[in-house]
Amino acid sequence: MDFFKYFSTNQIQQIHETTLSIMETTGLVFTYKPARDLFAKAGCKIDGQRVFFPKKLVEEQIKKAPSQFTLYARNSEKNVVIGGDHIAFMPCYGAPFVNDMDKGRRQGTLEDFNNFAKLAYESPYMDITGGMMTEPNDIPVANRNAERIYSSMIFSDKPFMGAGTGAKDAKQTIDMASIVFGSREEMKKKPPFISILCSLTPLAFDDKMCGGIMEYANAGMPQLISSLAIAGATAPVTMEGTLVVQNAEILAGITLAQLVREGTPVVFAGSSSATAMRYGTLSIGAPEMAVNTAATAQMGRFYNLPVRGGGALTDAKTVDSQAAYESMMSMMMATMSGINFVLHSAGILEGYITASYEKFIIDNEICGMCKRIKRGEEITAEKLAADVINEVGPGGEYLTNLHTFKHFKTELYTPVMEERDNFESWSNKGGLTMEQRANARYKEILENYKEPDMDNAVRKDLDAYINAIRNT
Amino acid sequence: MDFFKYFSTNQIQQIHETTLSIMETTGLVFTYKPARDLFAKAGCKIDGQRVFFPKKLVEEQIKKAPSQFTLYARNSEKNVVIGGDHIAFMPCYGAPFVNDMDKGRRQGTLEDFNNFAKLAYESPYMDITGGMMTEPNDIPVANRNAERIYSSMIFSDKPFMGAGTGAKDAKQTIDMASIVFGSREEMKKKPPFISILCSLTPLAFDDKMCGGIMEYANAGMPQLISSLAIAGATAPVTMEGTLVVQNAEILAGITLAQLVREGTPVVFAGSSSATAMRYGTLSIGAPEMAVNTAATAQMGRFYNLPVRGGGALTDAKTVDSQAAYESMMSMMMATMSGINFVLHSAGILEGYITASYEKFIIDNEICGMCKRIKRGEEITAEKLAADVINEVGPGGEYLTNLHTFKHFKTELYTPVMEERDNFESWSNKGGLTMEQRANARYKEILENYKEPDMDNAVRKDLDAYINAIRNT
Repeated sequence: MDFFKYFSTNQIQQIHETTLSIMETTGLVFTYKPARDLFAKAGCKIDGQRVFFPKKLVEEQIKKAPSQFTLYARNSEKNVVIGGDHIAFMPCYGAPFVNDMDKGRRQGTLEDFNNFAKLAYESPYMDITGGMMTEPNDIPVANRNAERIYSSMIFSDKPFMGAGTGAKDAKQTIDMASIVFGSREEMKKKPPFISILCSLTPLAFDDKMCGGIMEYANAGMPQLISSLAIAGATAPVTMEGTLVVQNAEILAGITLAQLVREGTPVVFAGSSSATAMRYGTLSIGAPEMAVNTAATAQMGRFYNLPVRGGGALTDAKTVDSQAAYESMMSMMMATMSGINFVLHSAGILEGYITASYEKFIIDNEICGMCKRIKRGEEITAEKLAADVINEVGPGGEYLTNLHTFKHFKTELYTPVMEERDNFESWSNKGGLTMEQRANARYKEILENYKEPDMDNAVRKDLDAYINAIRNT
Repeated sequence: MDFFKYFSTNQIQQIHETTLSIMETTGLVFTYKPARDLFAKAGCKIDGQRVFFPKKLVEEQIKKAPSQFTLYARNSEKNVVIGGDHIAFMPCYGAPFVNDMDKGRRQGTLEDFNNFAKLAYESPYMDITGGMMTEPNDIPVANRNAERIYSSMIFSDKPFMGAGTGAKDAKQTIDMASIVFGSREEMKKKPPFISILCSLTPLAFDDKMCGGIMEYANAGMPQLISSLAIAGATAPVTMEGTLVVQNAEILAGITLAQLVREGTPVVFAGSSSATAMRYGTLSIGAPEMAVNTAATAQMGRFYNLPVRGGGALTDAKTVDSQAAYESMMSMMMATMSGINFVLHSAGILEGYITASYEKFIIDNEICGMCKRIKRGEEITAEKLAADVINEVGPGGEYLTNLHTFKHFKTELYTPVMEERDNFESWSNKGGLTMEQRANARYKEILENYKEPDMDNAVRKDLDAYINAIRNT
C-alpha cells in the first residue's frame, strides 16, 4: 500500500528547513521554567520566556523517539501497536456538552462519561477506551481526573488515555495506573496509556502542558505532542504556512520530551485546520482539515515517527448529512494518508464542543469501513480466483459457488447499522433514518453492557483510592 | 501528488496476466454479430457467441486509445479535459425514481430530468451536465433519448452525456449534437459529449451495448467502457477476483472500440462493488466500492488510460447520515486514488434507484470539498510564509494580518451549505438540518435559473428536430 502524498522529497525538506529556521531565529515561548532550564542546559539560547532552538539539537533529539511502540491493555489481546502501517481509533475527547435525540443538548455528566467508556469498550473498532470523552461537569473539578481514570480502567480493558491537564494530574494518572498495571518500572516497559499534550499556538507552550510532557516523559509514558493551528487566526491563512507553525510546535514539544528522557514514545500529532472566515472561528469540518491530515502524515513519516491526524470531525450542530460526510472525509484521509493514531474517531459534534450518542454509533460504522478499506486487496491465486472465473464462464453466477461460501464472511465488510434492504422493506420496518437506528442501538449496547473482569484485590485498592478522593 | 495505491508493479502485472489469460482461454460472449465479425477479422477465435482474445491483440489495441482527451462544451470556457491529473464530476445517471422532502418518492418525469439538467448547469462543481439523471417516465419510451439530448443541450452549455441504449439512440445522439456542434467531421475533432457503454457481467456484452460502442467509435465519439461486477453474485466474492472480471470486460470493450476506429477516446470505467450478502443484492455504499475504486484507478493508469470510478454513492433509502458518509467515502477515494471521471457525483440514493433533489445539493458540497482537497498544497515562499510567521511571533494573531487578507479568498474553501456558526445562532435561525437547508436551496436555484444563450438559427433547427419527434 502506497499512502496518499502531497509532497515530493524536496518539498518535505523545504518545509523542514523552513521550520527549523523559524525555531532558531524566532523561537518559541515556554512559560514553564523547568522546561526552559532543561533547554538552556541542552544549549538553547534563552531570552525571557523565549527559547531559541539550534537546528542540530532538534534534529538530534527527534531521532531519539521510537518509530513504533505498543500500548499494553489490561486484556493483552487488546494491546495496540502505535506506528508503522497500523491505524488506531479512539473516541471523542474534551467535549463539555453531550447530546442525544431524547434529551437534547446538555452539559456532560460522569454518567455520560461512563456511558461513553462502556460504548468504547463494546465497540469492535475503538482500539483505545478514550480519555475525556465528555467533561463530568456534575462532580468537583478537583476530582474529575481521578474519576475519569477510574472509569476508564474499570469499564473497559483496552488501553486508555491519561490526563492532559498538567503535572499534578499526570502524576495522579501514573499513580492510579500503577495500582492496576504494576510499578513505575514495569509500566515503563509496558505502558498502558497515552496522553495528549498540546501547544499554545502560535509558537508557545504553557505551564500545564509542559508539566504534563515532563512528568510523563520522566515516567516513560507515551504522549501525543499535538498542535492545533488555525489557518487565518493563529497561523498563516495558507495551509502551507499553518503546516510550518504546526511543525515547529510539535518538534519543540518532542525535543522537550526527549531531553527529559531519551526514547520517550511520542506521536507526531497535528490537528490544524482552517478558520471559518465568516465567523472567525475554527472549522474542523473544512476540507483544509483533510489537506492538513495528509500533510501531517507525510511530515511524521519523514521524521520516522507515529502520526496523529484526522477524526470523525464536524462543525454540524446536529447529527445530519453534514456531520456524516465531514466525519467520513477526515476518516478517509487519515486512513489513506497513513495516519497511525486517530483521536476523535467517534462522537464529536459541533467542532469538539459536544459528544453525541447517536453520532458515536454512526462513527463506529465509519471506523469499521475505514479498517476494511485499509485492509485493501491481497494478490494471491486464491483471491484472484482465475480457476473459478474460468469455470463459471460468461453468463454464470457466483452466489452459490463454493468459493463464495468459503470467503464471504472474511472478504466482505458486514455493516452493523447500515440499511441495504429495498425501499419497500425499509418502509415496512418503519422507514427509520440512520440517526433513529443509532438512537436505538446505543441504548441496546448500554443495556446489554457487561463490565470486564478485574482482579478483586486490584479492584479493592482502586476503589479505596477513588473513595479517598471522593471523601476529601 | 502521489495517488493512493494498493498494488506494487509486480502485483499489477499479475492481475494483468491473469486477465489476459482468462480472455484467451475462456473468452467473452458477444451477442452482436457485427462485433464478432470484427473480432474474427482481427484474429480472434470464435465459437458460437464466444470470442477468444489473443493476448497480443488486446495489448496492441488498448495502446491505441489516447491517454487524455477533451470534451468540447457549447461554452468553450467549460471544456473538460478527461485524463491526466484531472478529475471531472458529473451527476447521477439512470435513476427511475426521484425523491424530495415535499413530494416524497415517485417516478421521475421529464420535468424532473430538466430540473436536474438545470441544477447541473448552475453547479460550480459539475463539469458535465449529465445524461440520464432520471428516467422521464411520463413520455413515450421511443421519444426519451431525443428529449434527454434536447434538454441537455438547451438547459446547459457544458459537455453532456449521450445515449447508452443501443446503436439507434447513439446515431440519434450524434445527429442531434451535429445540429449544435457542426458536422460529424468537426465533432470528431472536438467531441461535445461522452456516453457510457456497459458490459453484461460476467464476461459478456449484449447487442445494445456493442451497437453503441461501434456506432460511437465509428463517429470518433468518446465513451466510458464500463463494468459493474458484483462480488459474490456476478463475480468472485473476493474483490481481487472481481477486479479480474471487471478488467477482462473493460479490456474487451476497449479492444472493440479500437478495432472499429483506432484512437477512439475511451475511459477505463470500473464501478464494481460487493453483494449485500443478507439480501443477495448490490451494495454501492459498501467499503468494497472504495476498495475497487482505488484498484480500478491503478489499473487504468497502468494502461495509460483515463479512469472512471467512485461517485456520491449510497444504499440509504433517505437522505440521512448513511447517505452522506457513504457518498463521501467513494468521492474521497476517487479523489485520492487518481480517478479522472466520476459519474454519479450528485443525487444518487437507494443504490442507483432514485435521484434525490436534496442529496444533489448536498453532494455538490462534497464535490467542492474534494476539489479543494485535490488542489492540495503548493510549496512556495509566499505560501510557507516564513517571514509572516517570524514577524507575528509567539502569541500573535493572523486574522488582521495583510497575508491573510491577501490569500483567504483563494486558500480556504467557502462552503455553500455548511453550518459553521455556533449552536445558539444556529438554533435561533431555526435549527435546520443540512437536509432542510438543501431542500430550500434546490428550489432557490431552480427559481433563479436562467437558460444559457443559444444561437437562434441553431435553436430553431433543434426545435424542429424535437417537434418532429414529438409529432410522430
